[in-house]
Amino acid sequence: MEKSIHKPRVVIIGAGFGGIFCAKGLVGSNSHITIIDKQNHHLFQPLIYQVATGFLGINDVALPIRSLFRGKENIDIVMSEVTGIDTKNQLVLTNNHSYEYDYLVIGTGAHYHFFGNDNWQPNVKVLKTLADAISLRQQILMAFEKAEIETDVTIRRTLLTFVVIGGGPTGVEMAGAIADVINYALKYEFRNIRRHDARIVLLEAADRVLGGMRKSLSQYTKKILEKKGVEVHCNKTVQDILPNKIITKDETIEAETILWAAGVRANNAASWLGLPAAKNGGVLVKDDLSVEGFTNIFVIGDNSCLMKKDRPLPALASVAKQQGKYMAKVLNEKLDGREYKKPFRYLDMGTMSTIGRNSAVAQFKIFIIKGWLAWMMWGVVHIFFLTGFRNRITVFLTWSWTYLTYGIGSRIILKNPKK
Amino acid sequence: MEKSIHKPRVVIIGAGFGGIFCAKGLVGSNSHITIIDKQNHHLFQPLIYQVATGFLGINDVALPIRSLFRGKENIDIVMSEVTGIDTKNQLVLTNNHSYEYDYLVIGTGAHYHFFGNDNWQPNVKVLKTLADAISLRQQILMAFEKAEIETDVTIRRTLLTFVVIGGGPTGVEMAGAIADVINYALKYEFRNIRRHDARIVLLEAADRVLGGMRKSLSQYTKKILEKKGVEVHCNKTVQDILPNKIITKDETIEAETILWAAGVRANNAASWLGLPAAKNGGVLVKDDLSVEGFTNIFVIGDNSCLMKKDRPLPALASVAKQQGKYMAKVLNEKLDGREYKKPFRYLDMGTMSTIGRNSAVAQFKIFIIKGWLAWMMWGVVHIFFLTGFRNRITVFLTWSWTYLTYGIGSRIILKNPKK
Repeated sequence: MEKSIHKPRVVIIGAGFGGIFCAKGLVGSNSHITIIDKQNHHLFQPLIYQVATGFLGINDVALPIRSLFRGKENIDIVMSEVTGIDTKNQLVLTNNHSYEYDYLVIGTGAHYHFFGNDNWQPNVKVLKTLADAISLRQQILMAFEKAEIETDVTIRRTLLTFVVIGGGPTGVEMAGAIADVINYALKYEFRNIRRHDARIVLLEAADRVLGGMRKSLSQYTKKILEKKGVEVHCNKTVQDILPNKIITKDETIEAETILWAAGVRANNAASWLGLPAAKNGGVLVKDDLSVEGFTNIFVIGDNSCLMKKDRPLPALASVAKQQGKYMAKVLNEKLDGREYKKPFRYLDMGTMSTIGRNSAVAQFKIFIIKGWLAWMMWGVVHIFFLTGFRNRITVFLTWSWTYLTYGIGSRIILKNPKK
Repeated sequence: MEKSIHKPRVVIIGAGFGGIFCAKGLVGSNSHITIIDKQNHHLFQPLIYQVATGFLGINDVALPIRSLFRGKENIDIVMSEVTGIDTKNQLVLTNNHSYEYDYLVIGTGAHYHFFGNDNWQPNVKVLKTLADAISLRQQILMAFEKAEIETDVTIRRTLLTFVVIGGGPTGVEMAGAIADVINYALKYEFRNIRRHDARIVLLEAADRVLGGMRKSLSQYTKKILEKKGVEVHCNKTVQDILPNKIITKDETIEAETILWAAGVRANNAASWLGLPAAKNGGVLVKDDLSVEGFTNIFVIGDNSCLMKKDRPLPALASVAKQQGKYMAKVLNEKLDGREYKKPFRYLDMGTMSTIGRNSAVAQFKIFIIKGWLAWMMWGVVHIFFLTGFRNRITVFLTWSWTYLTYGIGSRIILKNPKK
């Protein structure tokens, strides 16, 4: 095909919130879109902690990228890993092929990082991908199974100790959900282990949990977690993490399950572009989300670093989503030969966090809300924002079922397959 | 606790259809039941081929054993692997502990076997456990993804060739389901691969598929499979299986996916009892399902060998289920100090097999049925027999959705988790 008659090619790397909403906005446009992702699915990250604790199943929170764009002829999906970008020849390089672009959108997200203590990584679980969630769930469920038949009291205690590091939304939600699992599941389904055999510890280095929210909500969250049986320790820095052991200034905790939920860093797309990493590890972008020195390369979501009052915009799903939508507007204008003049503005819609069954906190510009009503609101909002019509129904049904029965529905342990 | 006052202990090894229905019949009886299984779930095996092809999810076909017996105080669940049986001291031995029994029920099922060609095993997939199903699904889905970006025509052809060995119900159902996936999924969601790039081959050593059914149903099944694009080869013996290659007398087929569905053999519980393996590899039982030489040891399901006119009863879910129910009656009588005199009689309720969307065959004592009506009937029967109320709802909803949209719902590929 001759270059002169080809449709403009847009390559989107990463099918997270940013990439998906950008592509959605370009469906049917006069362009050829290629979405490259190393996974075959878009993940609704705000709910993966529910997969890790057995409340939801895989299909509730993940959608095949192909099915999202089923029948959309101008959108190609490539499941492959990007190895680099040749900006001179406008090529995205993967293990298998290279893909030409006229416009490039990068949204490859972030990963957990360890503040210089990468040696801790093998000793903790993280919760970023769906595979992480399944692996964590497997570990939590197996801990109960092993403890049920363990006669050594010390080993049993270690099996049933769950330490969550980081009191942000993920840490709070995980600690609350693990407590729910223990409070309800143990009660009816195990004969030998009892509630008081289990210990859940939430460690936060700052002086309160949910530091991004108002103080009163942090206090409320701590109170509810403690009521559920979670030990909440603030001002507690981790000194070292060994296998099944975590050391703080005044305590050494032996725990089968240690979850690291203490801070993310952007994936290193900057190096693909030959740029230094920005403050958050990502790529510094201008307020039209383009990268300095390139008029046709844009970075969105957790991967980008858009400075607002000397701080990068937070790594939130809502930021990525708004940037993806904005990106589509910019590109649609460009494809029509015009320029979109408005800069990107993040509209803060508020933040929410559940603390397990019946409790949540939410903070909006003009009001805050907590307790059962906030929890219901959290549920409604998350069902509304879920990607995919069918998922909304299944999540609604699953949650209703869980609420009524106190049971958790996704608890199958998969051992290694025999060939 | 003194021996004289303990409740009679029943140990059930294996939570398949036999074990579960036996335990259900003993809920609330004057006994202490221990169910030992190496998995944490009961699996509805007749539908795992739908998990392997993405039509159903894990939670649709599997239920945690604990949740099946939630709140049933006389039933203990142990997730552990049995290593042997000490019949002299009446102990079941596991990796961790030993469990005393007064009555022992063994139902550990069967596995695929290779008629003396165990070297083929690493080169094929099988479909027995849930992990097998997920592994097979992953392979099938990845084959499409790899083929979509593959430019070498020969490699692409190998990726998209699926060989199923064995024309019994599992083989027929798998071949039909893979054809449905290809016929519908490829059409709307892939841009580079087309229907004619794919090849599905069903190999059967005998002169017809579904050899257990009437000839007319075998012919109909072959016709429908061929209409869906499956190559059905009868009278075709496999000579060798190498990695991605299968050799028959007159053809060598290169295929990424080779599924072995040609015959099962009972798991070797006989050796636990110091007995020789019976004709089907299992334990020869009398018509009260007890083992020669023991009055308190019983074997049920695929694991048992109950001779009927010189042939063992077939390895079917319905046999296992009826034997489990019978077992509970026998034990309930024994627990009450009586003897149950009636021998076990298998009541043949008929057999069914789907051939994919819109077609099935079914054979009952007095009539046969095929086509769309048989397919609907197959669906209704399987929803009715599914274990668990909730699963019935989710499977019904999922199937309705699949029927209306031509989409398949469970297609998430899980890569290895990062720690």
